[in-house]
Amino acid sequence: MTRKAAIIGGGVIGGGWAARFLLNGWNVTVFDPDPQAERKIGEVLANARAALPALSDVPMGAEGKLSFAATITEAVEGADYIQESVSERLDLKHRVFAQIQQSAGLGTPIGSSTSGFKPSELQEGAANPSVIFVAHPFNPVYLLPLAEVVPSARSDQKVIEAAKTILREIGMFPLHVRKEIDAHIADRFLEAVWREALWLVKDGVATTEEIDEAIRMGFGLRWGQMGLFETYRVAGGEAGMKHFMAQFGPCLTWPWTKLMDVPEFNDELVDLIAGQSDAQSGHHTIRELERIRDSNLIGFLRALKERNWGAGKVLLEHDARRRTEMLAPGSVDLSAPLEMAQMQVLPGWIDYNGHMTESRYLFAASETCDALLRLIGADMDYVKGGHSYYTAETHIMHLGEAKLGDRLTGTVQVLAADEKRLHLFTSILRDGVAVATVEQMCLHVDMAAGKTCPAAPEVLAKLMPIAEAHKALPKPAAAGRFTGQRS
Amino acid sequence: MTRKAAIIGGGVIGGGWAARFLLNGWNVTVFDPDPQAERKIGEVLANARAALPALSDVPMGAEGKLSFAATITEAVEGADYIQESVSERLDLKHRVFAQIQQSAGLGTPIGSSTSGFKPSELQEGAANPSVIFVAHPFNPVYLLPLAEVVPSARSDQKVIEAAKTILREIGMFPLHVRKEIDAHIADRFLEAVWREALWLVKDGVATTEEIDEAIRMGFGLRWGQMGLFETYRVAGGEAGMKHFMAQFGPCLTWPWTKLMDVPEFNDELVDLIAGQSDAQSGHHTIRELERIRDSNLIGFLRALKERNWGAGKVLLEHDARRRTEMLAPGSVDLSAPLEMAQMQVLPGWIDYNGHMTESRYLFAASETCDALLRLIGADMDYVKGGHSYYTAETHIMHLGEAKLGDRLTGTVQVLAADEKRLHLFTSILRDGVAVATVEQMCLHVDMAAGKTCPAAPEVLAKLMPIAEAHKALPKPAAAGRFTGQRS
Repeated sequence: MTRKAAIIGGGVIGGGWAARFLLNGWNVTVFDPDPQAERKIGEVLANARAALPALSDVPMGAEGKLSFAATITEAVEGADYIQESVSERLDLKHRVFAQIQQSAGLGTPIGSSTSGFKPSELQEGAANPSVIFVAHPFNPVYLLPLAEVVPSARSDQKVIEAAKTILREIGMFPLHVRKEIDAHIADRFLEAVWREALWLVKDGVATTEEIDEAIRMGFGLRWGQMGLFETYRVAGGEAGMKHFMAQFGPCLTWPWTKLMDVPEFNDELVDLIAGQSDAQSGHHTIRELERIRDSNLIGFLRALKERNWGAGKVLLEHDARRRTEMLAPGSVDLSAPLEMAQMQVLPGWIDYNGHMTESRYLFAASETCDALLRLIGADMDYVKGGHSYYTAETHIMHLGEAKLGDRLTGTVQVLAADEKRLHLFTSILRDGVAVATVEQMCLHVDMAAGKTCPAAPEVLAKLMPIAEAHKALPKPAAAGRFTGQRS
Repeated sequence: MTRKAAIIGGGVIGGGWAARFLLNGWNVTVFDPDPQAERKIGEVLANARAALPALSDVPMGAEGKLSFAATITEAVEGADYIQESVSERLDLKHRVFAQIQQSAGLGTPIGSSTSGFKPSELQEGAANPSVIFVAHPFNPVYLLPLAEVVPSARSDQKVIEAAKTILREIGMFPLHVRKEIDAHIADRFLEAVWREALWLVKDGVATTEEIDEAIRMGFGLRWGQMGLFETYRVAGGEAGMKHFMAQFGPCLTWPWTKLMDVPEFNDELVDLIAGQSDAQSGHHTIRELERIRDSNLIGFLRALKERNWGAGKVLLEHDARRRTEMLAPGSVDLSAPLEMAQMQVLPGWIDYNGHMTESRYLFAASETCDALLRLIGADMDYVKGGHSYYTAETHIMHLGEAKLGDRLTGTVQVLAADEKRLHLFTSILRDGVAVATVEQMCLHVDMAAGKTCPAAPEVLAKLMPIAEAHKALPKPAAAGRFTGQRS
């Protein structure tokens, strides 16, 4: 049965939560008195719809239903999870929780997106404080997995565990913060760097652009995959963490930060920073920057997913969870070619003609076929076990020109299959029209022996019903063509 | 003529510098009195050899020659660039600079890897202070592009510019820090976060592992591609940077960081952190962690390269620089298929089977055909004039498995050609044996009209003699095959 999430407060953060729940199949009801709320949520949702499928190697299930409620009472009725993302004012949050708890189920988890308040502060005066906790996400909420989950001493541990399970189900990484503290964990670091950065700009040491380069050309790349301590552990070399600390510990007494103090926050500082930021990024609109950011994050996350590391591990686990749901009997539609991949044409895929470079059409087809192979269980673990499908032969028809930013869908039809052979016909579609078709003969091989051999029974058990059903599909006209054949 | 870099101090940082210079074709002489120096440099170099080619889409040129010197005098003799990476003791660095300047060329740039000292401090008492400056890199030096270049008021601007050019030539991003300050820019942020993190561990709020997750599941990913200010600009939404600052400026007065003070650095704190770090990462050796880190960084950097963004832009510019240096093909022998391309299988070309990923065979063929098109004058300028050859259809035979490091040669035979059509048969060979053949039908098009049209007379004048001569070559057996055809 489709579950329901209530999203109270629909800005960039609330919209990100709504998108995560919706794209993971939950129904979502939003309450936000802002007359612009529907438009704003729509924009976040459009970004999320463009981004989230690019992280998935499992076809996305059906979206949930989005609705807007006129009152908090209406929004939370029947909700299985409630997330509050209103402005950072404690009195306002207290009023919102009071209204929520007038009609919400007694045990329904109520997460707050607050970055500044501790759960014990949020719970003050509540009818049922034990279900209120911090679930602090990071923008863009639909892409970054982190949610800091912070309970207080008054929290119901069962509710916290239930909430963490739900967060995992929508692809997040709930980080259980065991001891409440102002700003939780991550924002304390952000604040420390922010203060230091303001000083550097104010004192004319560096511009906003130079500071950003100092981060993204160096340690930012390190932190995206290992964080602080593991990075330093490696830097310490074989001598390890103690050695690293012995080497750098004494620096603590050096005058390296200005953080004993904070810069005065005045119009002059705001103008200085805003002016530099305009000079740095003003040639892009915010919408463009959002798309660039999301595309980069997708690239990072996919790189980590390929390596089963960090945030990529979260994505693989999420895929595995959804694949299990998908392969439930009757969940694959066998009455048409299988839609196995969604891609966007990236700048690096473009050739000097301004079109997608020709090897990328085959790349797109490979992504599609790889997804089919994973679906039938011929996945990475299967390859590690010494067996794989190798492509023996390929025929490509170039039918259109994909351009930068085009969204492509890969579908695959099984033309024929037996124990050893897998004859596939892949279409790379834009708006439902093929820009290329790729016919391939794949052979199942014993990799050590370097010879073909029958696929494992459990793979054939998944493959054969698809092949059988696909016999009923019309044979594509391009199947069996040779290069240069007159049509 | 091959240039020479002198590396003074051969630890992890010095070794990283040595690797960058060597793999970019420079000769390198290292001075380090540590009897283990040669082994240590060898380990860094092995990591770099496994990593750096994975970032390149241009074949890597020949490595420079590595040698070890018994004295600083010997090391710096004839050097075009000198990099100092000895321990962080100012008296030691002063002694090293004095020795260097006894025999180095007068105008030779001397960069220091110091993270703690300002250039004016380094220059104190030097014979020629104007050539000494800070060139502060980030570990792993062979992968991360950032080098903070910090001159002082006494620096020779021409030497600084020459040094920046050299750093770009070895693939780095020199960030010119205009105002000297303790710890330059990036390490001030690292230090701020490090102090805050030590407090959180000491106070039992979070473990080293939880802190790393709080970074790498969230803002670390953001910072690897946009840094701090651009990220916040996007977070501010259409209202921009001023709005963001108005919203978050007031937080500066909140007690969010402990950085007014530093934690006491004692054995207890070291043991606490080292113990947690062991629990977090102790199941990997440092060597394993280095490989994991490098693989992740390669993934991030390639993702950015595909998008021509941030550190990826640096890589694309580095490729373009090296491609220009590569020589054009020599005289044409028409009695055999034309040998048009030489390639090496790079780590990024490998799939989960451990073999070259299938779309890279077509990529190799495209490189080969593009070289033929350049040969007949259908080059980038021709495309800018509105005409190009488009591939209409492709047939690939996979005949062998190319593996990491394999040297491949691309040959092409013109099967047929007329004014509009160009029928090509490309072979991708390893040791003279084809691992794949690719048959392609290319059509000459008027790009604006989106229609075929006759090629320019000067192109046909170069193409037709080749087509005529190739009529005498045997027709390849695979030409005209369709996919799945019984042989």
